[in-house]
Amino acid sequence: MKLVGNVLYGQSGGPTSVINASAYGIIKQALLHEETIKKVYCCHHGIDGILKEDLIDISSKDNLSQLELLPHTPGAAFGSVRHKLKDIKEDATEYQRILEVFKKYNIRFFFYNGGIDSMDTCNKISLFLKSASYECNVIGVPKTIDNDLPITDHTPGFGSAAKFISTSISEIGCDASAYDQGRINIVEIMGRNAGWLAASSKLACLSGYGPDLIYLPEVPFSKEKFIEDVKKIYAKQNRCLVAVSEGIKNKDGNYISDTGTLDAFGHKQMGGVASYLVSLFSETKLKTRAIELSLLQRSANHLSSKRDIDEAIEVGKRSLEAAISGHNGKMIIIKRISSKPYGISYEEVDLSLVANVEKIIPSDMIVKEGNNVNQKFIDYALPLIKGENNAVFIDGIIQFAKFK
Amino acid sequence: MKLVGNVLYGQSGGPTSVINASAYGIIKQALLHEETIKKVYCCHHGIDGILKEDLIDISSKDNLSQLELLPHTPGAAFGSVRHKLKDIKEDATEYQRILEVFKKYNIRFFFYNGGIDSMDTCNKISLFLKSASYECNVIGVPKTIDNDLPITDHTPGFGSAAKFISTSISEIGCDASAYDQGRINIVEIMGRNAGWLAASSKLACLSGYGPDLIYLPEVPFSKEKFIEDVKKIYAKQNRCLVAVSEGIKNKDGNYISDTGTLDAFGHKQMGGVASYLVSLFSETKLKTRAIELSLLQRSANHLSSKRDIDEAIEVGKRSLEAAISGHNGKMIIIKRISSKPYGISYEEVDLSLVANVEKIIPSDMIVKEGNNVNQKFIDYALPLIKGENNAVFIDGIIQFAKFK
Repeated sequence: MKLVGNVLYGQSGGPTSVINASAYGIIKQALLHEETIKKVYCCHHGIDGILKEDLIDISSKDNLSQLELLPHTPGAAFGSVRHKLKDIKEDATEYQRILEVFKKYNIRFFFYNGGIDSMDTCNKISLFLKSASYECNVIGVPKTIDNDLPITDHTPGFGSAAKFISTSISEIGCDASAYDQGRINIVEIMGRNAGWLAASSKLACLSGYGPDLIYLPEVPFSKEKFIEDVKKIYAKQNRCLVAVSEGIKNKDGNYISDTGTLDAFGHKQMGGVASYLVSLFSETKLKTRAIELSLLQRSANHLSSKRDIDEAIEVGKRSLEAAISGHNGKMIIIKRISSKPYGISYEEVDLSLVANVEKIIPSDMIVKEGNNVNQKFIDYALPLIKGENNAVFIDGIIQFAKFK
Repeated sequence: MKLVGNVLYGQSGGPTSVINASAYGIIKQALLHEETIKKVYCCHHGIDGILKEDLIDISSKDNLSQLELLPHTPGAAFGSVRHKLKDIKEDATEYQRILEVFKKYNIRFFFYNGGIDSMDTCNKISLFLKSASYECNVIGVPKTIDNDLPITDHTPGFGSAAKFISTSISEIGCDASAYDQGRINIVEIMGRNAGWLAASSKLACLSGYGPDLIYLPEVPFSKEKFIEDVKKIYAKQNRCLVAVSEGIKNKDGNYISDTGTLDAFGHKQMGGVASYLVSLFSETKLKTRAIELSLLQRSANHLSSKRDIDEAIEVGKRSLEAAISGHNGKMIIIKRISSKPYGISYEEVDLSLVANVEKIIPSDMIVKEGNNVNQKFIDYALPLIKGENNAVFIDGIIQFAKFK
C-alpha cells in the first residue's frame, strides 16, 4: 500500500552554496503531491530539531513566500548540526525519541541532506525505523563542497565552491600580476583528505591567471621539494602563485598544519597551513603573502555555478520522487555519461555503500611531480562550473530566504 | 594655442576593482579626439614604465579589441608600481628622464591614476614640467579602495570594495548562523588609518546578517573593552560576528598588529590582527575563527558596484576632457548633492590640495561606544554599492582584458 503522510527534511554538516537548492527541490516537489503529502516540515538544526521537537512548518504563508529565494541563499536555511548518533547497541535513547516524534508528526518521508557523516546518520535512522517496523521512506540527499562522496561522479556543492575558488584565484592572480616584482602568494583552500577543492584552482589557468603550483592531500608533502618548486618558478617569472589544500600531509601521514583539536566526529581541525608555508621563506628576502579563502568557499552563493544549483534542485526533486515511490535507505547519485558534451544521469544507491567512505583524486589526474593536476582533471571539473546563478540584489544588498 | 599631441596614462599603487574602468574612460574619450590626440600610450608599471621607456601603444588592433573587457578586469591592466619620486632639490635625475621620454613621444596629456601617494607623484611631475616650460597638461585620476582621499565625497574603487565586503559579510553571517551554538567570527578588513572599508561591513546588516561589532582605526582600541563587548553579545545570541580594520591602534597610537616592516612610502605593513584578536579568547572555551578578506577586497571585480564602475569611467572621461581643455595640475572630485535620491556633480581641485592628506571617518558616523557605525554612515555608503557590474564568463571561466 502506498504510504501517505508528512515530509520531514533536515540539513546536517557544513553548509554549501547549494544545500538550500536541494531543500528547494524537495519542498517544491512535495507541494505537487497533495494527495500523498499533507505537510512539509523542516528540522531546525537537523537531528537536534527532531530530538527537541523543534520543527518548522513550511506550509505557512510567510514561509512559502520565501521559497524562491532558497536557491540564492547560502548557509543552511533551516539550521544545521554536527550530531553523531550513538551506536544503537550502546544507547537507543535518541533513536526511540526520533521514533516518538516521527509518530507524533506522522512523518512517512524523511530526507537528510549532508555529507559522508550525515549519510551514516541517515543510514542508522533508516535501519532503526525498519527494525521498529515504522513505515517511513528515508532518503539521503548528498551535499558537500569537498566532493568526497563515493560512487557519485560529483556532489552538489562542489561545482559552486570550485567556481568561487577558480574565479577568486583568477582575480587574485590578475591583481598579483600588477607589479613588476611580485610576491609569492600562497592560497589556502579547504579539503581535509581529498584535494578536489584545491585542484579546482587549476581552472583559473583558463583565465590566464591560474596557480603555478598546487599541493594536495593525495600527495605526501615535502618541505624541501616545495621550497625548491617555488624558488624555481619565482626565478623565472618574478612571482609565484601557489594553491594548497589545508589537508596536506607529510610522508608519515601527519597533517602539516594540525591545530590539535577535534570536531564532534573526531576529525582533526585544520588551519593556518598557508601561514606556515609562508614562514618557510622568512629567511629569504622574498615577499610573501598567505591568503585563506576560508568560509567564503562554501558561503559565496552569489558566485555559485548555475549547473550545480540546477543539479542540486534536481537531486532534491528525485529524492522526493524516490521516497513516495516506496524507495527506502537510498541516496541519489550523479553518473557522468560524457564530458564533451556534458551529459549525466541520476541513479540510486544504498546508503550503506556511501556512509563513511571518502573519495580522493585519482592519481591519473595528478602530474608526475605531484605539484599540479592535469588536463584530465580540467576535463572533469570544467563542466561543473558552467553558468551563473545570478544573486538577487535590492539596492546593492544581497537577499536571502528567511524562515520562521 | 590648443595643445596637440599624444596621451600617456599610468597606474600606480594598489589596484582596485575599478582602476581599469577609469583607464577605459580616458582611452575611449581620447579616441574621440582624433584631431588633438594622435596616439594613446599606457605606462607599463606606472612611473617605472616611463623611466624604462616601456610604453604600451593602445592603438594596435589587438589592444583595441580588449577595451570593452577593461571595466570587468581587476588588477592594474597596464601594470602598477610603488615608486616614490625623490625631492627634486635632492635629485632631479628621474625628472629629467621623464621629460626626455615625454619629449620623445610628444606626450602632451598625462594622466596618473592612483591614491594619495600617487597624487603626490603626479603633482611633482606637473610642477616640474611647468618649471621646465614643457607644455603638458597633467591630471591626477583618483582611485583607492580606502576612500581616504580628501575633498572628494568618495573615491572610485571604494564602492566596489564596500560591495564585496558587505556581500561577503552577509554570506559569512548567514553561513555562521547555521549552527545553534555558533562561533566568534572575526573578519579582518583592509584600511591602514581610515576605517571606511571596515565600516562598510555595516551594510550587511540590511541583509539581516551584519556584524555585531565594528572596530575602526578612528577609535583607540582597548583589549579589555573588546573582550567585554564580544562576551556580552555571545551571551545573548550564542554567536558573535566582528568586523575589524587591520589598522586599529591602541590609545598611544600604536598599531595593534604591527609586522615591523615598511613599504616603499615608509608606511607600516599590517597583517594578522584578526588572528591576534582570536588569540585573546584562547583561554576560554569559546569557538573562534579569524577570516581575512585579504586581496579579494580589491580584486573581486565580479562583485563590483555598477555605480562605482560608471563613476570611475566618468571620472576618466572628465579627466581627459579637462586635459584637452587646457587644465593642468588638477584632479577630478565627486561632490555629493544629495543621498536620497542619490545625486552628484563632478568638480576639479588642485592636486596640491589632495597630495598626502588622509580623510578619516567623521566622529558623527561612529556610535558613542566606539564599536560600530550609525545610520548616518549607512546613508552615506549605501548608494555607493548600487547595481551589479555583471562579470563576463565563458563556460564558467571569468574573462579579463590583456594588453601587449
